[in-house]
Amino acid sequence: MTGVFFAGYPLDRASAKRSDVGFLAAAQVDPDARLLLLQGGKPFVAAPNGPRGPREIAWLSAGAAPSLAGTDATVLFLGLDAASAPHFAVEAPKDRDLAGDDGLLAGLGDFEELRGIGPMLTASDAALIGAAKAVVDWHARHGFCAVCGAKTEPASAGWKRTCPDCGAEHFPRVDPVAIMLPVKGERCLLGRQGRFPKGMYSALAGFVEPGETIAEACAREIAEEVGLTVIASRLVADQPWPFPSQLMIGLIAEVMDEAVTLDPEEIEETIWITREEARSLIHGPIEKGGARIWSPPPMAIAHTLLKAWAEG
Amino acid sequence: MTGVFFAGYPLDRASAKRSDVGFLAAAQVDPDARLLLLQGGKPFVAAPNGPRGPREIAWLSAGAAPSLAGTDATVLFLGLDAASAPHFAVEAPKDRDLAGDDGLLAGLGDFEELRGIGPMLTASDAALIGAAKAVVDWHARHGFCAVCGAKTEPASAGWKRTCPDCGAEHFPRVDPVAIMLPVKGERCLLGRQGRFPKGMYSALAGFVEPGETIAEACAREIAEEVGLTVIASRLVADQPWPFPSQLMIGLIAEVMDEAVTLDPEEIEETIWITREEARSLIHGPIEKGGARIWSPPPMAIAHTLLKAWAEG
Repeated sequence: MTGVFFAGYPLDRASAKRSDVGFLAAAQVDPDARLLLLQGGKPFVAAPNGPRGPREIAWLSAGAAPSLAGTDATVLFLGLDAASAPHFAVEAPKDRDLAGDDGLLAGLGDFEELRGIGPMLTASDAALIGAAKAVVDWHARHGFCAVCGAKTEPASAGWKRTCPDCGAEHFPRVDPVAIMLPVKGERCLLGRQGRFPKGMYSALAGFVEPGETIAEACAREIAEEVGLTVIASRLVADQPWPFPSQLMIGLIAEVMDEAVTLDPEEIEETIWITREEARSLIHGPIEKGGARIWSPPPMAIAHTLLKAWAEG
Repeated sequence: MTGVFFAGYPLDRASAKRSDVGFLAAAQVDPDARLLLLQGGKPFVAAPNGPRGPREIAWLSAGAAPSLAGTDATVLFLGLDAASAPHFAVEAPKDRDLAGDDGLLAGLGDFEELRGIGPMLTASDAALIGAAKAVVDWHARHGFCAVCGAKTEPASAGWKRTCPDCGAEHFPRVDPVAIMLPVKGERCLLGRQGRFPKGMYSALAGFVEPGETIAEACAREIAEEVGLTVIASRLVADQPWPFPSQLMIGLIAEVMDEAVTLDPEEIEETIWITREEARSLIHGPIEKGGARIWSPPPMAIAHTLLKAWAEG
């Protein structure tokens, strides 16, 4: 499997420690313990070389979590680094001005959209922010018990929620998605959804449903979206994708013919490109049929798939 | 990828039809429309050659759904067969005596546990029951909105729930799980959990967490459960597993050494077996160190993994 963005989590998740109350209490006030702060899902990052330069997590002291995010905030245990320093993440309430001129963190960094700064992060910072953002988003959308409707409570250092009424346990959700490049000989198919920016074409994708293998989901989505029949498919790479929390499973799928029948609800337009065009497209926009077309950046597994196919 | 049990869904899911109210209303009273009935998650099946023989879905008429399961029951659209006959599934309330001597369905079949009858089903019936059971179980545990706590309503022919209060949409959950066989040269490691039947050993497994690739989850679980370091892993097969709704992703993982350190919370005991022992074990119990040991049946992907490794 090929390397992908958002992979390469640099910490030991030390999941056995998540239920160790004594360890967690000590770890949160450990002077070496570091805190990743988020607000509205945006990580708090620094730009040491100015606004066009690389970003890095602006680590804070874990002991500051209550004053930054409130004493009720769920402090998520991210794990231990090689020196056994504990790392945490916490989401600050949206209405607090923390990074502004009068804020507690003025001058130390900014809250920035992960999608925007992705390419400016190191791989390990991207993996940490991705994991933290996915779990923080999940808490924000899972305050109530799906079984009985009661308010739930965070547990296991942020890796679980429990229902005090019915006893149900709820774990952060990860949705498996099949994402695939249909290919026929020396050509591959890209598609665009109506919501994509102008000129952007990507791989096809859809959620794996109950009762499906990955290859079955791949074949179904290709049949539904573009009306093509898959002969064979192979897994190329997989990627955790924190928008909000998918496991993207990337395939290259050989299809029977090239006559596309679009589902206009899903795909606005498709385009067959040659392997040579794909080799150009992974480096930037190309001209095709009088239009300028481009494909997702290296951060996205669609890029990994296109590159894997283009390079043979 | 190798063939697995619960794969091979025989219908066109025709997911665009799920929101087509006119189609669904007509389909449910179509004389050719067939209904898979479940009760407490157990499918209604027939045993045409007696209780030790094969089982098959005892298909009912879709028009009977309201009288069997109540007019409020969620009727799940399973898809269309090659002759375009619509197929549905519905869960009957637990307190109705349907298959008993005085029941509406007396003599037509019985509600039986899927785990028990799995090996007696055809592949396509197993795939249908697995998908239906996973979605029916999901409805049973998701009557309330995780976002706001209000009661939710089924939509999209049973493939969605919506919240009338906050507007949130909820989709059936599929949890990706990494399941893996650690191997070192000509030996592989099996483990047993305390809850396993006596003598049973299987592959190791754990949920993929937010921020992890499949290979990262595989390496983490092996490190956590048995203290071994993974050098390389490869995907062998994946399987939809309807207990309640996992996507099992099976790997063979080469580990650095054989010195196991158990996490007793997860694994009670491990055993290294040779490739020759594995070849025997896939056909039935073996004697090893004075004890009789056995491994999961062909229905489970653990068997697929063991067989793939045993046969080289």
